[in-house]
Amino acid sequence: MKKRKICVVVTARPSYSRVKTVLKAIKQHEHLELQLVVAASALLQRYGTAVDFIKADGFKINAKVFSVLEGENTTAAAKTTGLGILELSSVFENLQPDIVVTVADRFETMSTAIAASYMNIPLAHLQGGEVTGNIDEKVRHAITKLADYHFVSSDDAYQRVIKLGEEESSVYNTGCPSIDLAVPVLKSKALSFNPYQKYGGVGHEPDLSEGYLVVMQHPVTTHIQESRQQIEETLKAIDKLKLPTFWFWPNIDAGADGTSSGIRAYREYNELKHVHFFKNMSGEDFLELIFHCKTLVGNSSVGIREASFLGVPVVNIGDRQNRRQRGENVLDVECETIAISKAIQTQIKADIPQSQIYGQGNSGKRIAELLAQVELKFHKTICY
Amino acid sequence: MKKRKICVVVTARPSYSRVKTVLKAIKQHEHLELQLVVAASALLQRYGTAVDFIKADGFKINAKVFSVLEGENTTAAAKTTGLGILELSSVFENLQPDIVVTVADRFETMSTAIAASYMNIPLAHLQGGEVTGNIDEKVRHAITKLADYHFVSSDDAYQRVIKLGEEESSVYNTGCPSIDLAVPVLKSKALSFNPYQKYGGVGHEPDLSEGYLVVMQHPVTTHIQESRQQIEETLKAIDKLKLPTFWFWPNIDAGADGTSSGIRAYREYNELKHVHFFKNMSGEDFLELIFHCKTLVGNSSVGIREASFLGVPVVNIGDRQNRRQRGENVLDVECETIAISKAIQTQIKADIPQSQIYGQGNSGKRIAELLAQVELKFHKTICY
Amino acid sequence: MKKRKICVVVTARPSYSRVKTVLKAIKQHEHLELQLVVAASALLQRYGTAVDFIKADGFKINAKVFSVLEGENTTAAAKTTGLGILELSSVFENLQPDIVVTVADRFETMSTAIAASYMNIPLAHLQGGEVTGNIDEKVRHAITKLADYHFVSSDDAYQRVIKLGEEESSVYNTGCPSIDLAVPVLKSKALSFNPYQKYGGVGHEPDLSEGYLVVMQHPVTTHIQESRQQIEETLKAIDKLKLPTFWFWPNIDAGADGTSSGIRAYREYNELKHVHFFKNMSGEDFLELIFHCKTLVGNSSVGIREASFLGVPVVNIGDRQNRRQRGENVLDVECETIAISKAIQTQIKADIPQSQIYGQGNSGKRIAELLAQVELKFHKTICY
Amino acid sequence: MKKRKICVVVTARPSYSRVKTVLKAIKQHEHLELQLVVAASALLQRYGTAVDFIKADGFKINAKVFSVLEGENTTAAAKTTGLGILELSSVFENLQPDIVVTVADRFETMSTAIAASYMNIPLAHLQGGEVTGNIDEKVRHAITKLADYHFVSSDDAYQRVIKLGEEESSVYNTGCPSIDLAVPVLKSKALSFNPYQKYGGVGHEPDLSEGYLVVMQHPVTTHIQESRQQIEETLKAIDKLKLPTFWFWPNIDAGADGTSSGIRAYREYNELKHVHFFKNMSGEDFLELIFHCKTLVGNSSVGIREASFLGVPVVNIGDRQNRRQRGENVLDVECETIAISKAIQTQIKADIPQSQIYGQGNSGKRIAELLAQVELKFHKTICY
Repeated sequence: MKKRKICVVVTARPSYSRVKTVLKAIKQHEHLELQLVVAASALLQRYGTAVDFIKADGFKINAKVFSVLEGENTTAAAKTTGLGILELSSVFENLQPDIVVTVADRFETMSTAIAASYMNIPLAHLQGGEVTGNIDEKVRHAITKLADYHFVSSDDAYQRVIKLGEEESSVYNTGCPSIDLAVPVLKSKALSFNPYQKYGGVGHEPDLSEGYLVVMQHPVTTHIQESRQQIEETLKAIDKLKLPTFWFWPNIDAGADGTSSGIRAYREYNELKHVHFFKNMSGEDFLELIFHCKTLVGNSSVGIREASFLGVPVVNIGDRQNRRQRGENVLDVECETIAISKAIQTQIKADIPQSQIYGQGNSGKRIAELLAQVELKFHKTICY
Repeated sequence: MKKRKICVVVTARPSYSRVKTVLKAIKQHEHLELQLVVAASALLQRYGTAVDFIKADGFKINAKVFSVLEGENTTAAAKTTGLGILELSSVFENLQPDIVVTVADRFETMSTAIAASYMNIPLAHLQGGEVTGNIDEKVRHAITKLADYHFVSSDDAYQRVIKLGEEESSVYNTGCPSIDLAVPVLKSKALSFNPYQKYGGVGHEPDLSEGYLVVMQHPVTTHIQESRQQIEETLKAIDKLKLPTFWFWPNIDAGADGTSSGIRAYREYNELKHVHFFKNMSGEDFLELIFHCKTLVGNSSVGIREASFLGVPVVNIGDRQNRRQRGENVLDVECETIAISKAIQTQIKADIPQSQIYGQGNSGKRIAELLAQVELKFHKTICY
Repeated sequence: MKKRKICVVVTARPSYSRVKTVLKAIKQHEHLELQLVVAASALLQRYGTAVDFIKADGFKINAKVFSVLEGENTTAAAKTTGLGILELSSVFENLQPDIVVTVADRFETMSTAIAASYMNIPLAHLQGGEVTGNIDEKVRHAITKLADYHFVSSDDAYQRVIKLGEEESSVYNTGCPSIDLAVPVLKSKALSFNPYQKYGGVGHEPDLSEGYLVVMQHPVTTHIQESRQQIEETLKAIDKLKLPTFWFWPNIDAGADGTSSGIRAYREYNELKHVHFFKNMSGEDFLELIFHCKTLVGNSSVGIREASFLGVPVVNIGDRQNRRQRGENVLDVECETIAISKAIQTQIKADIPQSQIYGQGNSGKRIAELLAQVELKFHKTICY
Repeated sequence: MKKRKICVVVTARPSYSRVKTVLKAIKQHEHLELQLVVAASALLQRYGTAVDFIKADGFKINAKVFSVLEGENTTAAAKTTGLGILELSSVFENLQPDIVVTVADRFETMSTAIAASYMNIPLAHLQGGEVTGNIDEKVRHAITKLADYHFVSSDDAYQRVIKLGEEESSVYNTGCPSIDLAVPVLKSKALSFNPYQKYGGVGHEPDLSEGYLVVMQHPVTTHIQESRQQIEETLKAIDKLKLPTFWFWPNIDAGADGTSSGIRAYREYNELKHVHFFKNMSGEDFLELIFHCKTLVGNSSVGIREASFLGVPVVNIGDRQNRRQRGENVLDVECETIAISKAIQTQIKADIPQSQIYGQGNSGKRIAELLAQVELKFHKTICY
């Protein structure tokens, strides 16, 4: 029996964690052949060079696609997407995949979705049906309308994809593959590595024996001008609390420079003695880091997803995670210094149960199995 | 008061007829400034050089965007879209529109939708919410998820856009602007021009005194290999009927070459003495032509839309128009010679009432007025 | 010993004949590995689908690059070149060639030259140093300045590349590989195939027993508007002479549509009873066809090159071949009906000796051998 | 009389200084209309945001072209060039210039040259005919072969362009417009501004009363991997000398990241107490800064050109400036710590006369006058 060729396109560091166990399960599946394409910011040093982690994990890369345009405005995001389509269409023509897989909702994922669907290649979408609060929102639902198979992460998302007019037979609540990575962490008794030694980073190196916070806050692209001001609210809150803190640099976005320059500017005039900055960390280590943290602060979807499975308290700032389904671990706040500060103080004392709303830890295998079994098709009609 | 800059992107000959009265109404509106971009196949001779009609109608063109890639496969469609994004993002950056308007559902319209939405420019979409049977289907609903305002053509489409999770306050059933062009035709007593003299074309010039058929059949892109065979079914039906027939060349598509070469091949071996071929015709003349025809044959949306307003009998072939709302004028058939032949014989005797399901003939003005009044926004969240 | 990877990019039908024996010799060379890229008009039906001939000749294609933009103006030529660079840079990154080979001087060949030289891949150029009379002239010499190895076709060209400041050690007069293909033809006693049966084509099928002419006339791109008028001069001359004639369709160029539409228009109003039109022919058959013709008419470089080796009389029209070195077989004329007509009458009676100014028939092997032996380098400085 | 439209494309910070007085002279010329396009790294913060200086100088920008692709390899340089062609061809189509002007030899300038020459727009090239030692060398001479007018900077360059086969009537030794900017500096008695206050920058702020060095060292792109090591040689030399030093960040190049990261790494482990780093400075201030410095160190062409006019001692490192004509002010050294160190010690004591080999300070006006007078043409043939 000829193996099905499954082409997965990874365009950013966070997407890689979201799809890693899927890649592994495809690679190990006897009826599947993995074709791995690494594209856009996943190739760039500025955004954590996801490609190095991918190689280190033993995956063979079939094609690299350089497509990120430099620029301080939203025009660059549009052009990056256009360039991605030009490049990926050539890649797909060479690889002739049976199914293309696109992950989540970043703007560049649209390149994958358009190239595949216009070329009549069946398209699978991971993590559709969720609700957030910026351009990702438009992108995610538009990809749902282009995709032929939907592997969603929660019941909430499942219901929403159905409401969007997709056939029930093409929507599967597989849970989120990022949860799979959290399974081994559940057994961890204490941080098994020294973050300063293993990941370098910059800033002071506070003592961690009394616990620590983790901050990960991305810009909200539709408010470019405000991204600098927003990051300052969080910086002030963290600065005042004087708790040991690991701060993660934001990933690429039209507004990324606002956030990055906001951090740089703040650091120039404030010592931030208890804060250490990282550009990136392996997914496994990051999960262990938050599993043992007192509270995760910011607007990353990790707080909604993996943190709920791990039972980690989260202060979720602003509307970026908007209406994504939440476990009991999440406390939502406005992007305002005092509110953030108070919420952190509440959460560091909270007792949070573990939850399975985003999966049971076997999503990668379930998705690979479905990719091997679904009927190949690229033709659909809205259900109403 | 500063005028709102409304940038309309026209990418194909048929889209131009769909938006012409909107362009006129924007141009005449005291609070609006029209920015007209002509792109993709609308610039090319092979597809009827829509740009010449646009100029002849007195519109000033702000930018031309060459983006059509040559090729006999679907890769070219993907690349054309990618290139369109690269080019249109520069155009939008120069023109700084307040609202961008994209029309209908052809693959290149996605370029407009992505460039505008990624650049945080409010996006209006005309003719969303309909249902057809090929890649257009995916494109149309994906654009609905990217667009901020929806000017739909029928009640059916209105309901569908709402179901797709768009806010009621952003969806307007304006009717289809193409219907506006049909209003003056209603008064026509007989064909006011000689099509052979006015439009040239190729083939025999049958006598029209006993009535005539009009054929317009586009390829169905997801079945590229079959497009040649499909066009032959219709060619055979028309050939046998021996009725005077005007046949219109198909517009660009990934499968266009199958259809075109099918026609060419058939003509080499068959005389088709009663058939005359046209590449294109002004929208007004075309409507007059079908208003006086005995039956319109093919799979064009004109049969569903303008023909219903005019009360013209239609034989609609195959699933291209799929589930678009139909008036009483439409008889659907499989793409098979005998079925087509029988349906034509039925329809040429039919008595068809006029219908307003696709509008009352004032859509252009209504849309211009709405563009002047809607709140500017590019931020939305799904309604469920 | 590891084989050197030699990547040859073929972008048009005529280039393929120019490089075919090189491809064969690379493929057969024990220390070389052939990487074949087929791009631009070489992939398109409108321009003779060179790719089909390439496959039929048993070559494996490593990558196809769709890059031709549709359009009736010079903008499309620029954009095709830009797109070619985007695509070829990805191809080179995947194939990691040791040397890239680009052929001749068509505008798209610049894409190959820029992608390779910017990526620090040693670049070999075939057929530099010649002189013609349009945009090719600029392109050819610019590529010489980007290339690291020069395989030129004549002594004249050799001297010119040296004068352009290239090091003697990097310039080789290998003769033109297209001459290699002409070697077997020298033994042909009479036309071994029926052109009508083997290649179809359109138009009348004149009797060939008394001999025939061959016409191949390309547009001169810097005079776009005039290309239609120019082709008419030749059409009139041929029409009057009433000699059996094979006419070959022009290849792609910014002005191609002028030439093509000129031919179409002329045919509509004139019978041309003795003329038969072809889109293309295998290189071998074409050479046999001209070897037995009474005179080759037009502005193709075949008249300068292969025809001199074969001793075929040529009427060379206009300045397209400009100052390329000529054998005794060439009679130059202005693009004017009477001059063309008279020149043909002179040439059909002429007795032409065979010449080796463009090579001895072993160029493919010499070039492959050099590609195996040259020092790999991509760094050079002008010699004065 | 209708004004000639002169379109100048500026793609990088250094090019702007090279063309600023030309822009001014075109703007002021009664028969010329300036069309200014700002593209590539000239738009980016990382490379000094030349666009802000351009605006501050009162120039109106007709179009911005975002074309820089992110990436750590030479592929990005190729792609940036391809993208530039795609974008600039649209710009030229909209602006319809009579002449396009391209400056110097950076890889992106090829985009301008190709778009203009393929579109049959007369192309003027500034600063052709010089000799350096990397990819610029290939680019510069290739552009000479595409250009129709050559405005060269020295007699040496004039001779070389003639040898390249250009007609004498199209080559003009106008001197270098960058020299024009140096004219007012000749009158300066002492540094008229405080660099720390006016330009910020990072690093220590050494006392300048005893004089200072200026360093500007760009990566040499054909040795990407070595660029980091090379910058370290200079860093060590400067570090040892302990003289007050202004160090300028390198501009974009395929190897830029090697140089930048080399500087960053060195700074982490070494204090460099007497070194201050700048990203950029207005051309005028920079010239004043070097006019009063003890020695200019690095491989910038400023050392060869403006510094000779100003009589500033220069230590020129490595082969980047290769065989460009030198005044008596230049001392060439290998890229090696001790050699650099010794050369600086020699130069800071040297007595250097002023020279006019690169112009007399009126180049901008001469070039504008020529642009107004030259015959418009885009057709040329090599002179031998």
